[in-house]
Amino acid sequence: MLLKMKVFGLTMDPFTNVPIVILKDDGEKNALPVWIGVLEASAIASELEKVQFSRPMTHDLLKDLIRLVGAKVEKIEVTDLKDNVYYATIHLTGSNGAFTIDSRPSDAIAIALRTGAPIFVESGVLDKSKSMDLKGEARDKNLKDEPSLDDFMPGDYGKYKM
Amino acid sequence: MLLKMKVFGLTMDPFTNVPIVILKDDGEKNALPVWIGVLEASAIASELEKVQFSRPMTHDLLKDLIRLVGAKVEKIEVTDLKDNVYYATIHLTGSNGAFTIDSRPSDAIAIALRTGAPIFVESGVLDKSKSMDLKGEARDKNLKDEPSLDDFMPGDYGKYKM
Repeated sequence: MLLKMKVFGLTMDPFTNVPIVILKDDGEKNALPVWIGVLEASAIASELEKVQFSRPMTHDLLKDLIRLVGAKVEKIEVTDLKDNVYYATIHLTGSNGAFTIDSRPSDAIAIALRTGAPIFVESGVLDKSKSMDLKGEARDKNLKDEPSLDDFMPGDYGKYKM
Repeated sequence: MLLKMKVFGLTMDPFTNVPIVILKDDGEKNALPVWIGVLEASAIASELEKVQFSRPMTHDLLKDLIRLVGAKVEKIEVTDLKDNVYYATIHLTGSNGAFTIDSRPSDAIAIALRTGAPIFVESGVLDKSKSMDLKGEARDKNLKDEPSLDDFMPGDYGKYKM
């Protein structure tokens, strides 16, 4: 089953200094941390903060290419978590119909943010990542202002590869 | 006038630790250093070294997208150097004919290497970057084995932005 999620924020693995993007569902009952690369984190952060660069960054180039070939990003899906590696698929439609591209979640999320495409996560991925009910805790700690990895995944750091 | 060039190697600005990709023409008479980002340098290096990753890196995603929409990269051009910023254009053909995308040279070069597209540089860019005759020096120092910024641009470091 696919669950619609959104980018809740970015944080840093305190042990490995690897960036983590946090996805949450609309009710904020489920959180999915995804360990990602520094550049991909920068590509996500710059879009969240609406930073304007004088030159197109790599994910802007991807967006421009998609637009110029007349294609559209319909959705992205985080499809699997296997051997500590996350998998995602970008779903597009072009002049010849629908097609998909295999992607890392970080690139897929950076593209989703730039194109307004929805983000879905296969529920099995959430199970595998040991998601937990954060609702009460989140309200108490006001996580929306300052998300920290401690608030999401206590004692469960550094398990995942980029 | 456009000059056909190739990727000669990667090196590091010793003062700023910013990666530099060195382009050279076939006769190795002209060299163009381009200051680039760390990730783009990694994308260029991994293709030069034919490193295989288990998951597609961002520039592989670009390549896959170009292939899946039935487009082809015809060439890339480094078109200008203005206020210490390099400009490039990616030339493609798709089902609706030819089109171009504005790009940083680093992304354009990373794509050229992955698609086998030729790299051209506007001669004015070479003039502006103060290219020099490296032919004799290069042979003496066996630069092809271990290129170093000292061999290319003595006393001329750190002038350019990414």
